[in-house]
Amino acid sequence: MTNTQLTHIQIDNYGPWTVTPEPRREVDLQTLQSRLYADLAQLFGNRDGYVFFSRFDNMVAVSNGLDMDDHALIQESVGNRYPVTASLSVATGPDPASALGTATDQLQAAGSAQDSRRREILRGRATDNGGPADVHIAHFDVADATGTYTDRLNEFDSFIEIEQGYATLMCHMREENAALSFFVGGDNIIAVCPALSAEAYREAIEHVRETVGVEMRVGVGRGATAAAAGMDAKHALEHCRADDLDVHLGF
Amino acid sequence: MTNTQLTHIQIDNYGPWTVTPEPRREVDLQTLQSRLYADLAQLFGNRDGYVFFSRFDNMVAVSNGLDMDDHALIQESVGNRYPVTASLSVATGPDPASALGTATDQLQAAGSAQDSRRREILRGRATDNGGPADVHIAHFDVADATGTYTDRLNEFDSFIEIEQGYATLMCHMREENAALSFFVGGDNIIAVCPALSAEAYREAIEHVRETVGVEMRVGVGRGATAAAAGMDAKHALEHCRADDLDVHLGF
Amino acid sequence: MTNTQLTHIQIDNYGPWTVTPEPRREVDLQTLQSRLYADLAQLFGNRDGYVFFSRFDNMVAVSNGLDMDDHALIQESVGNRYPVTASLSVATGPDPASALGTATDQLQAAGSAQDSRRREILRGRATDNGGPADVHIAHFDVADATGTYTDRLNEFDSFIEIEQGYATLMCHMREENAALSFFVGGDNIIAVCPALSAEAYREAIEHVRETVGVEMRVGVGRGATAAAAGMDAKHALEHCRADDLDVHLGF
Amino acid sequence: MTNTQLTHIQIDNYGPWTVTPEPRREVDLQTLQSRLYADLAQLFGNRDGYVFFSRFDNMVAVSNGLDMDDHALIQESVGNRYPVTASLSVATGPDPASALGTATDQLQAAGSAQDSRRREILRGRATDNGGPADVHIAHFDVADATGTYTDRLNEFDSFIEIEQGYATLMCHMREENAALSFFVGGDNIIAVCPALSAEAYREAIEHVRETVGVEMRVGVGRGATAAAAGMDAKHALEHCRADDLDVHLGF
Repeated sequence: MTNTQLTHIQIDNYGPWTVTPEPRREVDLQTLQSRLYADLAQLFGNRDGYVFFSRFDNMVAVSNGLDMDDHALIQESVGNRYPVTASLSVATGPDPASALGTATDQLQAAGSAQDSRRREILRGRATDNGGPADVHIAHFDVADATGTYTDRLNEFDSFIEIEQGYATLMCHMREENAALSFFVGGDNIIAVCPALSAEAYREAIEHVRETVGVEMRVGVGRGATAAAAGMDAKHALEHCRADDLDVHLGF
Repeated sequence: MTNTQLTHIQIDNYGPWTVTPEPRREVDLQTLQSRLYADLAQLFGNRDGYVFFSRFDNMVAVSNGLDMDDHALIQESVGNRYPVTASLSVATGPDPASALGTATDQLQAAGSAQDSRRREILRGRATDNGGPADVHIAHFDVADATGTYTDRLNEFDSFIEIEQGYATLMCHMREENAALSFFVGGDNIIAVCPALSAEAYREAIEHVRETVGVEMRVGVGRGATAAAAGMDAKHALEHCRADDLDVHLGF
Repeated sequence: MTNTQLTHIQIDNYGPWTVTPEPRREVDLQTLQSRLYADLAQLFGNRDGYVFFSRFDNMVAVSNGLDMDDHALIQESVGNRYPVTASLSVATGPDPASALGTATDQLQAAGSAQDSRRREILRGRATDNGGPADVHIAHFDVADATGTYTDRLNEFDSFIEIEQGYATLMCHMREENAALSFFVGGDNIIAVCPALSAEAYREAIEHVRETVGVEMRVGVGRGATAAAAGMDAKHALEHCRADDLDVHLGF
Repeated sequence: MTNTQLTHIQIDNYGPWTVTPEPRREVDLQTLQSRLYADLAQLFGNRDGYVFFSRFDNMVAVSNGLDMDDHALIQESVGNRYPVTASLSVATGPDPASALGTATDQLQAAGSAQDSRRREILRGRATDNGGPADVHIAHFDVADATGTYTDRLNEFDSFIEIEQGYATLMCHMREENAALSFFVGGDNIIAVCPALSAEAYREAIEHVRETVGVEMRVGVGRGATAAAAGMDAKHALEHCRADDLDVHLGF
């Protein structure tokens, strides 16, 4: 059984802050958001977790291996270094979507994302480290994105292709497989998945090809942590590139 | 006539670098990418430009007010501080899409994005600063995103809604208006536009509502630089919020 | 006549903040301080200024070329991205020490560094940009520091030598020449100086040699901004290295 | 018996890099150095270590609790994100000075700091984690630095006082106690010490007062890691402030 631990990270009351007392300069907001994400990537990553920026004011981490004390320290470190604070909610479940559902529920129960009095909530329970953590990470990319798009179309039209591929994949993986897929730059998408067959991945790729005409490949890894599973997935994807495969499960 | 100057920023040979000699840790790639973006946001932003992360390995800047020397200094600063280098190509045109088209063409003419010998290209021509620069920036957000999504759905399902709204809007604005729309976090999308009527913006919002059911609003600003136009757009959007309007042109 | 414009940057009420409600983790304070310094280095540096970290909670910038609006924007950018705010005071004078004296006076007149109600002070007047700005920058290093210290002593004992050299030089340059000298890493010291003769620099080097036995060299540059003068100083120091000179004035 | 594990961190061939092919802009060097330090502070700090910037191109970490795999990961992370690489050498000893001596020896044996072929050296041995680690951290500050200096003198003259206090203390602690003292900003100095009596600390403070007239206080902590000992030292120093003591040992 997979046992993915997810953390919902939410900047407290961020929307109102960005326009109070009047709109803050966009360049500063962009810098703040991307640096906060980079810091969380390091704070979770140094403990073998993964963080996805998703909406930047709400982020999702695969946090197997981190206990609640680790989360408290990350929360404190953000509060010590940024003009905003963050709430964290931790949960596990039979699949990534239901784990995140629980995590978000816990946060919503503590108050609205725009409640100015709700600050630095820390909720949930980390999995017992002794348990059989079994994180599945799928790493998708676009077959020959450089030759097909980057070196041929204007940059925005290349971006549209990648983006339509992502928008299609994220919905399919969520609806069919209860998996959470995140764009991570370039032509790369990383999905947090339950245990899925090669056939399920093949269907996802086929669905994207048919719907928006983008050709994807995927390597899949599994491990006790996101870092371990993710690195396996990268190697599996290299295997796809070398042998011209659509799907490779590296385990 | 609008006269938007755009810069296509491309990390040189980035894809191969990320997997040579073997795949680099995702946490380091994410940190590198988001910090490089933050630095470019500051480097352009301190000169009143805007940068959008788009694919992170390819970024787009609105660079009115920056001449080629400014671009050379930004390029040098990246080379001095990162393990990768960046190529920059600058162009203007009758609309944002054609300006970016020219910028990308210039870069493609210098070699492939994955040509290991093509490094730190600097191409193009900055607009004469004396000219009538007239940048249009539209700032969209989702009406009551917190109440409709963030406080009700699990975080990924909220994200899907925003993402589908964005994917729909970016295509419409590109095809109908030659405008370039970028997700900038939260429920915010910033578009670089030619001079458009309120009706054109209303149609875009209507198109998103009908296609994916997401309710958007938009404030539009214009100015000599992205920073000036963008700040006007933010104020125009505040006006929409206060008066419950769909579209407000702040000029 | 030299006409150096200096800015005294002071984090507001920082000491109390570091221990309220109880002592914050040192790693977060160190990260905050060094990143704030890096950001100020970029914010001033992108406008051809120099910032020295000195005590980190109090920093000194050579700000010729920056007007009060530039300072206001830097102050706002810090406030938008950090949990602390900064006060800035700007002044010029016949020599760097008196310019800084005026800048500090202006800040002290606005309240104590640990007055919790004194926030984001912005005082002073920038020099008329039309005037004959004439910034002198001297770049010192230690002759063969690697061969003499780094490759021979343990790291702390190498550091002691550099540090004693710096402590001696900073006092001499302040007392004899009204110049402000800052350690900038490695074996490098950068001094903001009035117009001085080669003889004055020779005496400084001789004084350090006699007092603590450290052999220094210096290249001196002048220009309209710190960046221009500082780059000239670096080239002058390269000239010292190539021709085995103690002092070289690059103008 | 104290059992402090120290890591000597050295940027590979940094001096030549800063001037090749010609001198790089000071602002970029300062940004690079201070951010690299901030990242190392986090990379070690997330594992309960402390890093001191000392010369920036050579840094010293208290690394009890980090094994050689942790060091390898830190080294890889720096290489993945910076244009320079770092060598790391790890050692323990009966006192901090001798531990660092061993660490530096190991690095020097691998080649010169300016040998262009010597890259990413990783040497030494981490202490057995099961052993009785016993790190002593002393946190000094200047009694009423704000009232005595910051609010009264110009900023450089305040800085001179702090700096002279530091230069005096670092030599005394090194010579008399084999302890390594580092300025960490503001009026704060943190020393890595063997087990010392309150009397030894009192003598150090007395020596600084007599030599340069600066009044210091010190809180001392001990623990299994730098973070634990350092936090105890901060609380001990708070105790000095509250009760107007010169020295407090928090154990």
